[in-house]
Amino acid sequence: MKKIGMGLVGPGFVAAHHIDAVRRLGDVDVVAIAGSSQQSAEKKAREYKVDKAYGNYHDLIADPNISVIHNTTPNYLHLPVTMAALAAGKHVISDKPLALNPEEARTMRDAAVKAKVAHVVTFNYRGNPLVQQARGMIARGECGDVSFVHGHYLQDWMTDPNVYSWRSDPAKGGSTSALGDIGSHWCDVAEHVSGLKIASVLAETTTVIPVRYSAGASAEAFSTKSSGERTPVNVTSEDLASVLLRFEGGAKGSFSVGQVLPGHKNDLVLEVNGKALSLKWKQEEQNDLWIGRHNRPNEIMAKDPALVSPDVRSYVHLPGGHQESWADAFFNLMRDAYAWIAEGGAPEAKPVMLPTFNDGYRSNCLVDAMLKSSAAGGVWQSVVFQAEIR
Amino acid sequence: MKKIGMGLVGPGFVAAHHIDAVRRLGDVDVVAIAGSSQQSAEKKAREYKVDKAYGNYHDLIADPNISVIHNTTPNYLHLPVTMAALAAGKHVISDKPLALNPEEARTMRDAAVKAKVAHVVTFNYRGNPLVQQARGMIARGECGDVSFVHGHYLQDWMTDPNVYSWRSDPAKGGSTSALGDIGSHWCDVAEHVSGLKIASVLAETTTVIPVRYSAGASAEAFSTKSSGERTPVNVTSEDLASVLLRFEGGAKGSFSVGQVLPGHKNDLVLEVNGKALSLKWKQEEQNDLWIGRHNRPNEIMAKDPALVSPDVRSYVHLPGGHQESWADAFFNLMRDAYAWIAEGGAPEAKPVMLPTFNDGYRSNCLVDAMLKSSAAGGVWQSVVFQAEIR
Amino acid sequence: MKKIGMGLVGPGFVAAHHIDAVRRLGDVDVVAIAGSSQQSAEKKAREYKVDKAYGNYHDLIADPNISVIHNTTPNYLHLPVTMAALAAGKHVISDKPLALNPEEARTMRDAAVKAKVAHVVTFNYRGNPLVQQARGMIARGECGDVSFVHGHYLQDWMTDPNVYSWRSDPAKGGSTSALGDIGSHWCDVAEHVSGLKIASVLAETTTVIPVRYSAGASAEAFSTKSSGERTPVNVTSEDLASVLLRFEGGAKGSFSVGQVLPGHKNDLVLEVNGKALSLKWKQEEQNDLWIGRHNRPNEIMAKDPALVSPDVRSYVHLPGGHQESWADAFFNLMRDAYAWIAEGGAPEAKPVMLPTFNDGYRSNCLVDAMLKSSAAGGVWQSVVFQAEIR
Amino acid sequence: MKKIGMGLVGPGFVAAHHIDAVRRLGDVDVVAIAGSSQQSAEKKAREYKVDKAYGNYHDLIADPNISVIHNTTPNYLHLPVTMAALAAGKHVISDKPLALNPEEARTMRDAAVKAKVAHVVTFNYRGNPLVQQARGMIARGECGDVSFVHGHYLQDWMTDPNVYSWRSDPAKGGSTSALGDIGSHWCDVAEHVSGLKIASVLAETTTVIPVRYSAGASAEAFSTKSSGERTPVNVTSEDLASVLLRFEGGAKGSFSVGQVLPGHKNDLVLEVNGKALSLKWKQEEQNDLWIGRHNRPNEIMAKDPALVSPDVRSYVHLPGGHQESWADAFFNLMRDAYAWIAEGGAPEAKPVMLPTFNDGYRSNCLVDAMLKSSAAGGVWQSVVFQAEIR
Repeated sequence: MKKIGMGLVGPGFVAAHHIDAVRRLGDVDVVAIAGSSQQSAEKKAREYKVDKAYGNYHDLIADPNISVIHNTTPNYLHLPVTMAALAAGKHVISDKPLALNPEEARTMRDAAVKAKVAHVVTFNYRGNPLVQQARGMIARGECGDVSFVHGHYLQDWMTDPNVYSWRSDPAKGGSTSALGDIGSHWCDVAEHVSGLKIASVLAETTTVIPVRYSAGASAEAFSTKSSGERTPVNVTSEDLASVLLRFEGGAKGSFSVGQVLPGHKNDLVLEVNGKALSLKWKQEEQNDLWIGRHNRPNEIMAKDPALVSPDVRSYVHLPGGHQESWADAFFNLMRDAYAWIAEGGAPEAKPVMLPTFNDGYRSNCLVDAMLKSSAAGGVWQSVVFQAEIR
Repeated sequence: MKKIGMGLVGPGFVAAHHIDAVRRLGDVDVVAIAGSSQQSAEKKAREYKVDKAYGNYHDLIADPNISVIHNTTPNYLHLPVTMAALAAGKHVISDKPLALNPEEARTMRDAAVKAKVAHVVTFNYRGNPLVQQARGMIARGECGDVSFVHGHYLQDWMTDPNVYSWRSDPAKGGSTSALGDIGSHWCDVAEHVSGLKIASVLAETTTVIPVRYSAGASAEAFSTKSSGERTPVNVTSEDLASVLLRFEGGAKGSFSVGQVLPGHKNDLVLEVNGKALSLKWKQEEQNDLWIGRHNRPNEIMAKDPALVSPDVRSYVHLPGGHQESWADAFFNLMRDAYAWIAEGGAPEAKPVMLPTFNDGYRSNCLVDAMLKSSAAGGVWQSVVFQAEIR
Repeated sequence: MKKIGMGLVGPGFVAAHHIDAVRRLGDVDVVAIAGSSQQSAEKKAREYKVDKAYGNYHDLIADPNISVIHNTTPNYLHLPVTMAALAAGKHVISDKPLALNPEEARTMRDAAVKAKVAHVVTFNYRGNPLVQQARGMIARGECGDVSFVHGHYLQDWMTDPNVYSWRSDPAKGGSTSALGDIGSHWCDVAEHVSGLKIASVLAETTTVIPVRYSAGASAEAFSTKSSGERTPVNVTSEDLASVLLRFEGGAKGSFSVGQVLPGHKNDLVLEVNGKALSLKWKQEEQNDLWIGRHNRPNEIMAKDPALVSPDVRSYVHLPGGHQESWADAFFNLMRDAYAWIAEGGAPEAKPVMLPTFNDGYRSNCLVDAMLKSSAAGGVWQSVVFQAEIR
Repeated sequence: MKKIGMGLVGPGFVAAHHIDAVRRLGDVDVVAIAGSSQQSAEKKAREYKVDKAYGNYHDLIADPNISVIHNTTPNYLHLPVTMAALAAGKHVISDKPLALNPEEARTMRDAAVKAKVAHVVTFNYRGNPLVQQARGMIARGECGDVSFVHGHYLQDWMTDPNVYSWRSDPAKGGSTSALGDIGSHWCDVAEHVSGLKIASVLAETTTVIPVRYSAGASAEAFSTKSSGERTPVNVTSEDLASVLLRFEGGAKGSFSVGQVLPGHKNDLVLEVNGKALSLKWKQEEQNDLWIGRHNRPNEIMAKDPALVSPDVRSYVHLPGGHQESWADAFFNLMRDAYAWIAEGGAPEAKPVMLPTFNDGYRSNCLVDAMLKSSAAGGVWQSVVFQAEIR
């Protein structure tokens, strides 16, 4: 069987999950990975059981056996790696956030469109079958007019001040932490599911832990290992934020994000209230969709091929009760991405579920508006977004 | 046994629960109720099995066998009834919101303090043992510094546009609906549990259903009975709101309230995040307290005399798993109220849990600041509150 | 208003809840209580705010102002107290289990029927609105043919070997512990809800903690207070049991009970599976009824007057989300009991929900069959029960 | 990189998940699949993106590039396929139940031991990190002496009488349905986690739906597609069963299984009660472990590398809240299987978690004892099991 070749740049925390997902496709070949040095790349290649390692991303991009680039570098490297890949005519699957700011993101979006390749950003929560079920129910009008879109995305992994990585460094992770890292996910799912666009935002951001202690060198995200002496670092990016939302068409919204809230692991909750019914999806209980009703009992729809809509069935791989979760949703994203790639990235062939650089750029615009609102002391800020020109 | 006499003015929805709670005390005598007419009062008296009925509140207040007045009238009547009761030297237990606006509320608060009687406002959710447990844990510093206080209070009983009562009429219910009716409860519990005061607010309010259909006459709250012809009424009070909070001392907060969100019955959730641990209490699962931790498993503390703190045990009446809920929390409030009354309402004898007119006035100030913030298009608004002068 | 007079014999743990429930009725007068001595009775009378105290039950039964006797004595005293009350023509509300064995129970049942008074046994879980909802749904055939009735009733209050009371003493509590105390509740709810009768049983019983340490004197149930020296006592009654059931008509069943299972407070779960749908009710989440379906999403019916069947509404006192629990279900039982008493205990006037001495006798027969099955090493044992003869 | 070659015989429902899991390993090559005909095998090969297809299993086993055989045939073919593979010196990974009866299973177990190859049976629920966590906690004595092991495994996929496959045909699926298919899983997890062996059983089995309607031909399991005319078939295997258990050492147990219980999808629950604490694991909420305590709040341990024991961490691939579920547990099983294969299947190299043919044989012995107990009308039946001889 002819396989499509992929290469990955940036073998950090999430890289293993990219590789895992594409291996499950069966017809994708993990050709090579590129790291910051030949030595580190080879170490990671052995760990991930990949045959080839490159000490820089240029060589990987130039590899003729590779037609898809997975960009899992720290945020500040998204731009150069992706632009180089696009210039070489390669398809690109980039981690989120797409860029450090809307300008960079727009540059990539426009370049990708011009390059006529597939361009994907990993807003992976879309890959859950019941997220698609909720999106479909709202799109078909089953919820009635949407009045309120709300929820939160709460974590506790930064509770310990000894947690410090490139993510907290403005130069490498961007000027935002909670909003950029997880608020971006929440907003993407909120707009994707509700079918509504956020028109303006009002944000209140906070840095609960303003001094963190760095173990130096290249500490990986989600690592809490202490390694000898630690250096205090002033942190300016927010680890807590609450945001009010006004959607186009009049619906309202609100959400909170936090990375320092003990007991919350990856607690993303989205609820959409319509005049006819409400839908609530909790990422940590992703196999259930809560359907709230006024005059009838509430329902819990299980992720079950027999219960979801026909168009959602292809995202379900097991009978109900045989739960599918993070890696399976990530797989669904990659499956749709490679289906698009198989069509050469033709715009009209893009699966509806698949988040593109356009969505990644939009996400940067949303977060940017929130940061501006908060910096101005809490004022309503319109979302500035330049639509794609084909 | 000598019993203390109580009389109730305003035999609507919540009156039956006042009577129920005081009957459980064993040493309180329900002497009489007063309604808007002799006939309606007598009808309700029979229904509630009360011996005496008055056609106006003046006569009830004048009854020498009555020393405690329960004021469960519609909001716009809180002021005259309570002021008359205070003038007669009677103790007063008033439904919330205490008044239509801060001025009225302050008038009552000041009059009550001057009258040297017990004055209670029914922020009944304080009466839950695990609300007291949470309050105590935070007061003792077990949560560490509080960074975030958040949650919601969501209902669906106004989802149907045919729901219309005095509560939606600005003249009788006040200019607010969701914030005044349930936002007031949320903020009271939030301040009571966290031990923190809200310094300023920023609110976004919405009227999701701007036209309702009145069945005329005196439709009771929570009633959805249709009765012939209905008249469209423009509703201006909000049935949905989201609010950002800044607490004194630096903690942040946010909450949403809504009365038109299908599937939510009485869904009050309060979470307080400290740097050491988080606490979450859900009113609809009031026998569990969620304790969130970063480096240890989360805990679920059951309402159990063996698990709660010693000072909380008197609020628990049954072993763990023998659940206690709305009426039991309401009873606890009344028990503490009558304990205070037994001490003549002496300020120093007030049980810590018990919400007074001072809390009722504060609640009006908070809601007023929210309405002003929203009316101004969404700006931070300081909470204006005149402290009690003894 | 003319009130009906009640007197209570046996002021232990549950007595306070009997008094609490009847006080809520509004037209019942708690006339007196009787204890094992004049002194102890007076102490309890003050605690419960009851005017009159008797040092023996004979005097209380003879009190002409008392027409209803609440028998909350330890199990071995149920018979003499109840027989004396019936002989005096008084209505009797007895705690469960009705008796120490089927013979005693049948004697009381027959005497009560002959006395033509109201006779009630406190299988209080029937008083939950959603238990009645489940019963009605099954009776109306909404579940289809019932195939399986199962669940458990698990507690942990006897986990500590220092817990010892009359309940563990065969002479006072009977030869059974877990089956008699909580298995009886489970079976009553199972038969009441399913509408099916248990035809035969097969039980395996265990005494996990065969030696307990008595603090002597009259330790109350649910008390864990240590008081000086403790004496080891060999315990022979079971604290753990599993039972297989065959119902008349062919349905099967199974349940487990345990009192030494850490973490379970009052964890009664009943599930009934029909061919069309399943119903599950959890006592600790008594405001929700789970409705399981094969080809549609499962439902959660909230205790809400707008959601339950019309015949169940009188058991609901608050809107959905305003939870009702143990004391409210107990109240419902007492309300129906006094409604029956108001009709003089006429057989045809008995509310369907209300458990009578006939149900109490049946419960003793069921437990007796289980004990015989287990004693025989685990054999199927038919339930022997003599139907009421009018 | 040198890859190990695997081939799969029996491309039905579960085959795709075997292939998916081994692909995630990165160093296993899916060489070929064998079906019942060349044509059907080729069709499945294309679907699964496998290069080579065989029309019979003998040719696949003979393929020199294949060193591991995955046996996912219908139950009645487990024996011939596995015996042929063992005869060829191949490692074998077999679906459960290992065989139609204990004799067949023992034959395979003995042959596998003699062949000195790796032999694995897919009791995949062991692969869940929190199952391993529970096993470790009990093994280390954290729960105290175990008194009770209980739970259930309930499904509803056979609720519809039109569901009929080889699984209901005694000649192909064996004489048991619910006990063999899912009871086997429950018992395996129960013994694995508790560390205790079931000594004797007492079972009550039922066929709730005695007539099913076959669509003929080779209907796949879990398929409900109707295809024209259907033929009634008498079904004799049980679709519902309840079982009492006695463990070696004195602990007791009970569980129920059912395949016709509406609303239950894959509802496996295992609880182990010790004298110190209880553990409960629900397969449908597999990322939480409930820890029940008597004198402290209960705990919910999340699947989080920072919370589980060090020896469990290798089964965790994502941070807490990033849920892992069915496919991930299945992957963990395959990972350990191939780790054992990499050691040539040397007995001393077998990972503790990994279920072998010995466990598969034991499972057949347990189910056999249950069937005999039920056939005898419900008597205690000792488990007959011949220990492995090396």
